[in-house]
Amino acid sequence: VTDTILATEMREQPAVVQELLSSQRGVIADVARRARAQHLMWVLIAARGSSDNAARYAQHVFGRLCGLPVALASPSLSTLYDAPLRFEGALVIGISQSGQSPDVRSVLERAREQGRPTVAITNAPTSPLALVADGTVDIGAGAELSVAATKTYTASLAALAALAVELAGDDASREQLAGAPEAMQRQLELGIGDAARALEGADRCAVAGRGPNYATAFEAALKVKELSAIAAEPYSPADLMHGPVAVLGPASPLLAVAVEGPSLASVMDAVAEARSRGARCLLLSDSADARRSDGDARVPLTRVPEWLSPLVAVLPAQALAAQLAGALGVDVDAPFGLRKVTRTT
Amino acid sequence: VTDTILATEMREQPAVVQELLSSQRGVIADVARRARAQHLMWVLIAARGSSDNAARYAQHVFGRLCGLPVALASPSLSTLYDAPLRFEGALVIGISQSGQSPDVRSVLERAREQGRPTVAITNAPTSPLALVADGTVDIGAGAELSVAATKTYTASLAALAALAVELAGDDASREQLAGAPEAMQRQLELGIGDAARALEGADRCAVAGRGPNYATAFEAALKVKELSAIAAEPYSPADLMHGPVAVLGPASPLLAVAVEGPSLASVMDAVAEARSRGARCLLLSDSADARRSDGDARVPLTRVPEWLSPLVAVLPAQALAAQLAGALGVDVDAPFGLRKVTRTT
Repeated sequence: VTDTILATEMREQPAVVQELLSSQRGVIADVARRARAQHLMWVLIAARGSSDNAARYAQHVFGRLCGLPVALASPSLSTLYDAPLRFEGALVIGISQSGQSPDVRSVLERAREQGRPTVAITNAPTSPLALVADGTVDIGAGAELSVAATKTYTASLAALAALAVELAGDDASREQLAGAPEAMQRQLELGIGDAARALEGADRCAVAGRGPNYATAFEAALKVKELSAIAAEPYSPADLMHGPVAVLGPASPLLAVAVEGPSLASVMDAVAEARSRGARCLLLSDSADARRSDGDARVPLTRVPEWLSPLVAVLPAQALAAQLAGALGVDVDAPFGLRKVTRTT
Repeated sequence: VTDTILATEMREQPAVVQELLSSQRGVIADVARRARAQHLMWVLIAARGSSDNAARYAQHVFGRLCGLPVALASPSLSTLYDAPLRFEGALVIGISQSGQSPDVRSVLERAREQGRPTVAITNAPTSPLALVADGTVDIGAGAELSVAATKTYTASLAALAALAVELAGDDASREQLAGAPEAMQRQLELGIGDAARALEGADRCAVAGRGPNYATAFEAALKVKELSAIAAEPYSPADLMHGPVAVLGPASPLLAVAVEGPSLASVMDAVAEARSRGARCLLLSDSADARRSDGDARVPLTRVPEWLSPLVAVLPAQALAAQLAGALGVDVDAPFGLRKVTRTT
């Protein structure tokens, strides 16, 4: 599967993030400056699919670095119900690689009518979404032809991390972020061996991640679904324990994103519970503790500051989904009759 | 399965909602009055499991009736990352039937320290959660002994609907809400026939719902997972079309909540897509249009104003999950080694 468009786009990710961090730095600083000038209290993000998973990362980093709560928009309130939504105090962000989603654009239009600062994060800087926003971060990933988003996802993560850094005005974080592309490159070079064998034969699985990697769990699950049609459902380990853990068992393995930091213990609790129910576990982990456990498959992660780990951890998850697809004979560049641009309202 | 604790608790739902709407009316009106006095801009809700699904309903009704955006809290930011979250402009609501979740309580504690209005919606009015909130809605469901929440879920929906009505000060909506218990009773009496046969033999399925019934999709999926261990994943039809539709097929049916109103067309689009992929479909529907389609199983829904339909639509979903469990020989009152109270942080 190394000669597919998907594989090529996956390899481009470190360079795309590197370029974005340098070329968009001024735009992002400017967005942050204008947002702060308007007494910012909270952030609203409208997005779908992989972009919505990037928004889940924003929920963590904006809270952690800036103390800003993040709401994920219910686009149907604007597009279908004409709800009289007020956005007082909000910075409103739309994320869409194509910039074509009417539902995402609709939320930004409402916000702009109310004089709130709006930002588009998109790979299409002249798209309808970009035209309605008063600031546009061009993620500059180049054409993404594979149906499964990879480089536009990591580029969106980087754009959101950079925006959080500028809103917080935090030099140490800015320096950490600058080191991310190199760590991503090292991660790609590590490969994943034959990790997909841990999920082979399953037609369903759960994916657990928490803190910054709650987003990674969602994006990993989406890649697995899109590329292999295995029903992979993402969870915070805390949510998993509230009932859904019932689905785990010998026929239903667990993929866990187990990164060193405050979330690790609860992820490993879910892994222990999964094992006790007879489920195979596959860990994406930078942790020596997590590696000590027996009987599970592991993919090593390059160590980066935990808040940036989603940029690194999603790479082997993408490769895993592609490997699963390859084993099933799926055309990874156009799987299961999916279309690249989905114009939902 | 009619002599289980679960079945008894399900039958109590109309009476519990009726009692709540009368006994808590003063408390809810008082909470609304105090919240409005503090220049309310947005709402933050902390919850887990079924209560988090009730929060998804709040996201719809607070937006639709009051124009208030709702953010769902990431509890790990408070409990694990000690993020400096600011809640300026927010009404902060914690929902927990047991009132025992440290993560939900932690969010309310932070909000209270900042002088924000806080509300607990709980079945345990002397619980740690209730003690930290400055207003407590006692959902008064009586002891809920079955692991799968049913009456505490519908009671939480009713409490949130009543709070939205009081925040909006809308007499017509208040009258509509007063009619909900009777419609719930009629729905229970309709039963579901042998609807579960439409999902028989599947070990995974998708559940689609939108607008107010996005919450119903999540709660239906959770009941099915808890009670039958079938991996049921909930989606907005718009999200489903962004990739995950790949998982639908002959071995992976679709349960769709198809209620008359602005969301119906997009739910039926997902049903059409599912059919074209060879997936069986089971519709919970009050719609003559939806019923005209061929080849699918249907459970009729009692017609109520669309914004209240989640109170009715979840009832056959609960019964469906119980029927699936019964067919599999699961003890529905204590399925799969699950515990009633989950103390996640």
